[in-house]
Amino acid sequence: MMQTPLILSSFIKRAERFFPEKMVISRTGEQTIQRFTYREWAKRTRKLSNALTQLGMEKGTRVGTFAWNHHRHLEAYFGVPCTGAILHMINIRLSPEHIVYVINHAEDEILLVDEDFLPHFEKMAPMLKSVKHIVVMSDSKDLPETSLENVHSYEALLEAASDEYDYPEDLDENTPAGLCYTSATTGNPKGVIYTHRGLVLHSYALGLADAMGLCERDIAMSVVPMFHANAWGLPFAGVFFGTTQVLPGPGFNPAVLLDLIEAEKVTITAGVPTIWLAALKELQQNPRDLSSLRVIVCGGSASPKGLIRAFEEKYNIPFIVGYGMTETSPLVSLSVLTSSMKDLTMDERIEIRALQGLVMPGLDIRVVNEEGEVPWDGKTMGELTVKGPWIASEYYKDERTEEAFKNGWLYTGDIAIMTEDGYLKLMDRTKDLIKSGGEWISSVDLENALMTHESVYEAAVVAVPHEKWMERPLACVVLNEGVTEDDSKKEELRDYLKGQFASWWVPDEVLFVKEIPKTSVGKFLKAALRVQLREQYSVN
Amino acid sequence: MMQTPLILSSFIKRAERFFPEKMVISRTGEQTIQRFTYREWAKRTRKLSNALTQLGMEKGTRVGTFAWNHHRHLEAYFGVPCTGAILHMINIRLSPEHIVYVINHAEDEILLVDEDFLPHFEKMAPMLKSVKHIVVMSDSKDLPETSLENVHSYEALLEAASDEYDYPEDLDENTPAGLCYTSATTGNPKGVIYTHRGLVLHSYALGLADAMGLCERDIAMSVVPMFHANAWGLPFAGVFFGTTQVLPGPGFNPAVLLDLIEAEKVTITAGVPTIWLAALKELQQNPRDLSSLRVIVCGGSASPKGLIRAFEEKYNIPFIVGYGMTETSPLVSLSVLTSSMKDLTMDERIEIRALQGLVMPGLDIRVVNEEGEVPWDGKTMGELTVKGPWIASEYYKDERTEEAFKNGWLYTGDIAIMTEDGYLKLMDRTKDLIKSGGEWISSVDLENALMTHESVYEAAVVAVPHEKWMERPLACVVLNEGVTEDDSKKEELRDYLKGQFASWWVPDEVLFVKEIPKTSVGKFLKAALRVQLREQYSVN
Repeated sequence: MMQTPLILSSFIKRAERFFPEKMVISRTGEQTIQRFTYREWAKRTRKLSNALTQLGMEKGTRVGTFAWNHHRHLEAYFGVPCTGAILHMINIRLSPEHIVYVINHAEDEILLVDEDFLPHFEKMAPMLKSVKHIVVMSDSKDLPETSLENVHSYEALLEAASDEYDYPEDLDENTPAGLCYTSATTGNPKGVIYTHRGLVLHSYALGLADAMGLCERDIAMSVVPMFHANAWGLPFAGVFFGTTQVLPGPGFNPAVLLDLIEAEKVTITAGVPTIWLAALKELQQNPRDLSSLRVIVCGGSASPKGLIRAFEEKYNIPFIVGYGMTETSPLVSLSVLTSSMKDLTMDERIEIRALQGLVMPGLDIRVVNEEGEVPWDGKTMGELTVKGPWIASEYYKDERTEEAFKNGWLYTGDIAIMTEDGYLKLMDRTKDLIKSGGEWISSVDLENALMTHESVYEAAVVAVPHEKWMERPLACVVLNEGVTEDDSKKEELRDYLKGQFASWWVPDEVLFVKEIPKTSVGKFLKAALRVQLREQYSVN
Repeated sequence: MMQTPLILSSFIKRAERFFPEKMVISRTGEQTIQRFTYREWAKRTRKLSNALTQLGMEKGTRVGTFAWNHHRHLEAYFGVPCTGAILHMINIRLSPEHIVYVINHAEDEILLVDEDFLPHFEKMAPMLKSVKHIVVMSDSKDLPETSLENVHSYEALLEAASDEYDYPEDLDENTPAGLCYTSATTGNPKGVIYTHRGLVLHSYALGLADAMGLCERDIAMSVVPMFHANAWGLPFAGVFFGTTQVLPGPGFNPAVLLDLIEAEKVTITAGVPTIWLAALKELQQNPRDLSSLRVIVCGGSASPKGLIRAFEEKYNIPFIVGYGMTETSPLVSLSVLTSSMKDLTMDERIEIRALQGLVMPGLDIRVVNEEGEVPWDGKTMGELTVKGPWIASEYYKDERTEEAFKNGWLYTGDIAIMTEDGYLKLMDRTKDLIKSGGEWISSVDLENALMTHESVYEAAVVAVPHEKWMERPLACVVLNEGVTEDDSKKEELRDYLKGQFASWWVPDEVLFVKEIPKTSVGKFLKAALRVQLREQYSVN
């Protein structure tokens, strides 16, 4: 067989050759939607490669992006790695200290930054050790006022650059293409390098009929930020398959997303549960025509069954839950239904949809405890481990590699069970598990159950210290608007759980809170919740 | 990223772990259908690996199969290459001389042979230089009477073997896995080596929503022989995705195939046009319920539009034409419809379906003439060249490599055009093109047009020498039963063509024949037709 490498530049060529008229639809401001054909986008991408090369980008150079989901970010997704350089997608929600850390740790030499974020960089600039150029990604060719040095206008650079660039066809497929940092429980973020090979194989997986079935006919909207785990790979795979891409840009809200779905006839979209919960609320107030949607993909944390039911039952849109993490490119599994499930009732179907699902073709998973792989019995918990060609093998220049990568497997730190059908169900993060009287209690199970109650908007369950049982669960609940926070409601919620769980699982106490702190990507941030609760409950 | 190799043993593990109850349905005789779960099939496959290892199979050993499509052949598809040995799928339709040639050239040490073919081997045995063992694949554990030495019963070997075998997980993905020989215009067949990497990537392509969308929910019947270009990859991809597989076994006919589709609720099937033409005829006489079929894939030679129309219009089954060859694993392109074609009329749709279609994600094609790539204008002809990770880079130990593999591209010997939409349309084999008065005439276009005429069952057009124009087309036509072969019919057919082609394309003469000679895989064998016509028309 030919030794044709699996590299991202082949995606640009395919989109440009075979789907030149398909569109990249980019919302760059509150009222601005820009449209580019793949022909135009490919030219702009090559112009970017030339412009950055002029600024000193070479093979291996790290180029950071600090940006929302828009066409320029998609140009950088290809214009940087196709030359052999490395795209570092910086998570804009990190703390300033961590942003400085990741830029210095990655040794970024060029940064591509959305105009909104420039004030940020002005403060951080003195701490950045490797950055030589800052390129401002705005619609205007004029540079904003700034105290920064070596600042360039993205559009001005592109205007001056040639649209011809011969991407190396013999680039080793194991060449690093991307770099993302993931938050650590303690300490600095940890970097994960993506290779061309890994991203190409991940893109194939997204196109499988057994996975998302992403294809040319799709109009795909990435709600997941492009600075977070490759926006779940949609931007890469979308170019590969000639999919129309809708990029929702800066400062979007549920109304904006729903308007885009309706106006652009989006067929597939992906985001975290909090996004879809908010979208559902908006939808109930201001209905839209969502009939173009063939699937919603949801991941990042557990999806409440009420959410799944609303979309599957009321809107007739398959709502597929997925599992992945920065270390896994990220797609590991999806709650697709197999042939044996075709006659399920709606209730049974939703039970399956709420699982993290079937592992993707090409990967393997094991849920393990001290004795090895746990039985597939739907109850024995263990730590999820993953292996495969789009799974990281290390943290970038980081001693913490050995904590997570052992014997050829990634230890995810997630506690899971396997159903008898081989479906993955996440129970908790290792650190979020509650160990009461020597037995494990899953905070996620309790949270999901609480969130199916009609009075509950959001809920998080954390461990609090207990003299006798070591730890006991505490439920922190945000009630729906208009619901009264009183003791009878607390008892009602506890009773509700008693109907579903062993009595010792039920939290001894329910605490009403105004909101659950969340991470930059909408996951419950239990560490922050614990900080808030520290004094009151001696939470660690 | 982890350096997890792309190897076939991962497919067995996936099918066995996640789809142990899915089925391999194997027709091994006229009235015999055997059913195995993937759990059973995987055990039998490992038993085969152990049994063959006992017979001396090592890494790199060539093991030949001489067999129909059945579960034992599928066991060999994995049981041989997963150990690091090489499966040589021998085309049973080759001439005895060529069979001896390919076995000796491949240096096969073990042969797995269907019982029906043993008499063949008794005659060839004295000429075979490398064969040490012959394993008879029959349902019985008793060996048939034979003059051959070192003959074993497949089932007896399996019975004695352990079902545990640790396939090497660190096998280099570029290790050869399979070997097929393809007929050459002149001389001996040419061998093509398939690697694990190539077959894994090809399997991903088959699963793409933009390709066949092969998936777990499918019930796939490979009509294409497993001794021909990997049965278009369905047996491999089927195991990967946990697809139910139906293998139609020896001596099937259209009635058997249609009965299997109806009884087993087949959802996808693949074969050459002659099979579907015959199936259509049978179907008209004895209707079946084909409502389970979601797609028919057709390739190997051009599909008459009348055939496509019948399935698309009357049976409402998408009929997708594909292109590939032994050298390309084989899938290169499929006539899938893109989003821009969703509002086509049935007539327009059939025009697209009859093309060879869009190139698969991961491959690239160029139609070239002396001046480089031809324009995509729907008329300029050139030779089709192909590149990609599941395209061969050479013929196995064969000097003819340099004729076909140049500058990193495979020169297919097929004359094609590209439509403005980037769809491939095959016009002819290089050697079948007719050059009349310095201009090219496509025999395939004329054949396809003739086959849409209500009186015509099959048609082949070949070049005959001509004093003035050098070559002129001659139409050889098989009429439908009951149609009278007379001069007025000849004129009618010529008039029919005149309405569709430039007058100089229309054959000067129409010849009625009883049948068109076909290759082992149902393609028109124009070389044989030319031999038949040689005396009468001085055909070369």
